Amino acid sequence: MRNERPALPHSSSLIPHPSFDLTRLPVDAVELQARIDRLGQIGPHPEGGLFRTLYDDAWAQAMALLQSWLDEAGLESRFDAVGNLYGRVAGADSSRVVMSGSHVDTVKQGGKYDGALGIHVAMAAVKALAETCGRPRRAIEVLVTCEEEGSRFAASFWGARAIVGAIQAAEAERIVDSNGVTIGEAMRKRGFDPARIGEAERRDVAAFVECHIEQGAILEREGYPLGVVSTITGQRWLRVRVSGRQDHAGTTPMDLRRDAMAGAAAMIDRLTLAAAEMGRPAVATVGRIVASPGAINIVPGACEFTVDSRHSDPARRLELLSSIERLCAEVARERGLGLELETLMDHEPVPMSPQIQAVLEETIERLGLRYLVMPSGAGHDSEILAERFPCWRARCID
Amino acid sequence: MRNERPALPHSSSLIPHPSFDLTRLPVDAVELQARIDRLGQIGPHPEGGLFRTLYDDAWAQAMALLQSWLDEAGLESRFDAVGNLYGRVAGADSSRVVMSGSHVDTVKQGGKYDGALGIHVAMAAVKALAETCGRPRRAIEVLVTCEEEGSRFAASFWGARAIVGAIQAAEAERIVDSNGVTIGEAMRKRGFDPARIGEAERRDVAAFVECHIEQGAILEREGYPLGVVSTITGQRWLRVRVSGRQDHAGTTPMDLRRDAMAGAAAMIDRLTLAAAEMGRPAVATVGRIVASPGAINIVPGACEFTVDSRHSDPARRLELLSSIERLCAEVARERGLGLELETLMDHEPVPMSPQIQAVLEETIERLGLRYLVMPSGAGHDSEILAERFPCWRARCID
Repeated sequence: MRNERPALPHSSSLIPHPSFDLTRLPVDAVELQARIDRLGQIGPHPEGGLFRTLYDDAWAQAMALLQSWLDEAGLESRFDAVGNLYGRVAGADSSRVVMSGSHVDTVKQGGKYDGALGIHVAMAAVKALAETCGRPRRAIEVLVTCEEEGSRFAASFWGARAIVGAIQAAEAERIVDSNGVTIGEAMRKRGFDPARIGEAERRDVAAFVECHIEQGAILEREGYPLGVVSTITGQRWLRVRVSGRQDHAGTTPMDLRRDAMAGAAAMIDRLTLAAAEMGRPAVATVGRIVASPGAINIVPGACEFTVDSRHSDPARRLELLSSIERLCAEVARERGLGLELETLMDHEPVPMSPQIQAVLEETIERLGLRYLVMPSGAGHDSEILAERFPCWRARCID
Repeated sequence: MRNERPALPHSSSLIPHPSFDLTRLPVDAVELQARIDRLGQIGPHPEGGLFRTLYDDAWAQAMALLQSWLDEAGLESRFDAVGNLYGRVAGADSSRVVMSGSHVDTVKQGGKYDGALGIHVAMAAVKALAETCGRPRRAIEVLVTCEEEGSRFAASFWGARAIVGAIQAAEAERIVDSNGVTIGEAMRKRGFDPARIGEAERRDVAAFVECHIEQGAILEREGYPLGVVSTITGQRWLRVRVSGRQDHAGTTPMDLRRDAMAGAAAMIDRLTLAAAEMGRPAVATVGRIVASPGAINIVPGACEFTVDSRHSDPARRLELLSSIERLCAEVARERGLGLELETLMDHEPVPMSPQIQAVLEETIERLGLRYLVMPSGAGHDSEILAERFPCWRARCID
């Protein structure tokens, strides 16, 4: 599908005219920071940072504040059927829309820039463009998405998936939060009707640009203020189940054991080293592990762990995945252990629009800033929207 | 202390006279098995096996049954101050006592032989000896100990420690079960007074013999019906805390990570291999592990695991322990990780009485049975009683 995507219409018009002075756009840096700080006070987590989750009180409070800012800036604001918030400047031709924004929800103990930055930057840019250039050729919209993180419901990219029509019929009634509340119940409590989710779908988006804080250390360590994302990484989540034999930790000689924990440790050691040897941007992470039965003096009969592996190149991603599977199978064979791999999630790398990347690079160069073209190792709304619309995602670290 | 232990008085008298026909002792194998099965029905765990824990209803029911059997056999039965049960045959000289027995409490989902076998065998033997030989020279006692396993309270060897006077003053009020009930409260509910724990101490035991099911696979695999234990293994329990840096699993390149889980896996792999390379009876087991924060897509900033390491030779045990510490420190250094090792429990190997071992070996040989002299990899009441009294522990697998 990706290769068949039509070329962006009028793509040349996306590049600002050389006489346009980018540095004179009326963006008030002090106000921008004040807004970041103000939104960053909504939804504090008791242990530090933020925790704003879909349809909760902090979410509603944050959305009301953002809507008031959109209204103040003279944009037409509206919520869609799932709670994405739009702020629109009508264009001469409004049949196709240029959009920018990001998500308002946070991870547990999230920071005030993750997601929010892309909203603040979009609002400031749209407002400044409207003030400087008047009515645009195309409609421009600020987009505030919801439940990108999947922090309350295992329904990541909820808002973005609604926009591309990718929410499955049963999700609203099937997926529950940690208190057993379904998405549908939570929607109704906020005045949204689950039966109308389909109305959030859009077919008129010409381009989407998302500015996001870097969540790694590459730009920061290498001294770049900006990055231009070429691809959003492909990702597979595995659950690995290693089965051996439960034994007494004192009376079973090492040579007679089928120790699931020791086997899992060898697998984890080898698979993380394999990702490191493959080099950037290959990554493999074991974030969760459980040894059973979990007593100090019992040789574990079973050990279960997760693997999150990512690569932005489709072929290299498959290479990494097959290394991981091979290394686990090798250890299992060497030690007489059972092995089961379950795929919890899997998606291919998603390339960003080369045309929009080119616009961004040229613009950054005209501003005299340094930037790095890089894959994004994290998932973003852009990868969902890119399935339908050309997308670009920037990163900035200050 | 161990080397200063005086030689067992009258040790030669422990060896049965060559004319005594061991095979004619009136032990009823059918009744023995019936009793094993009957006791093995008290305290069933809902998921299979038994779960009899200190002072609970199943424990009380089991103790009442055992006391009725002791009484039936004509032994003088009594409970001591902590709930150990004795059955006594008075001797011509009752100033020193020969004792045999084991524990009545079980691990979670424990089997009907673990502990119980040593009680049944002691009861059958004492009864048969009394019937065959009449009044013994020394008093003989059957001993049923309690909370050997530490299944309800973290107070392993509770009964045996009471007998050697090794219960610390605060234990009864400090140690609680999973419902927050102290040992003292649980004692009072069964009519025992925590203030009288000291009265359980004994100084008149000449020898203790414990028969126990093998909890490993050595005898079974090598076809021996019996083992004679030379030493009870030395044991150290460690809690290993590995600290790194929590990072995003997608955006942090492998070469910039300080991944506590990957480091822990390398440590576990190396330390288990080191124990295997050292050969029997060295063992090292990682039974519990927790990676924090425990999300699939977050590089763990911390990982904590336990190590149970054992060896029956004091010098080799220290060698194994220093290998484990060195290997963990090496990984931590290589990967820039923090490392903290906490000792949760530690004790030296406890040698069993050579004199009683010799008696046992000679007796088994006269019966024409095969046996293996071996260290015990599991802990037992015998190792506590051996601190004061000569002890021997047998194993049998059928």
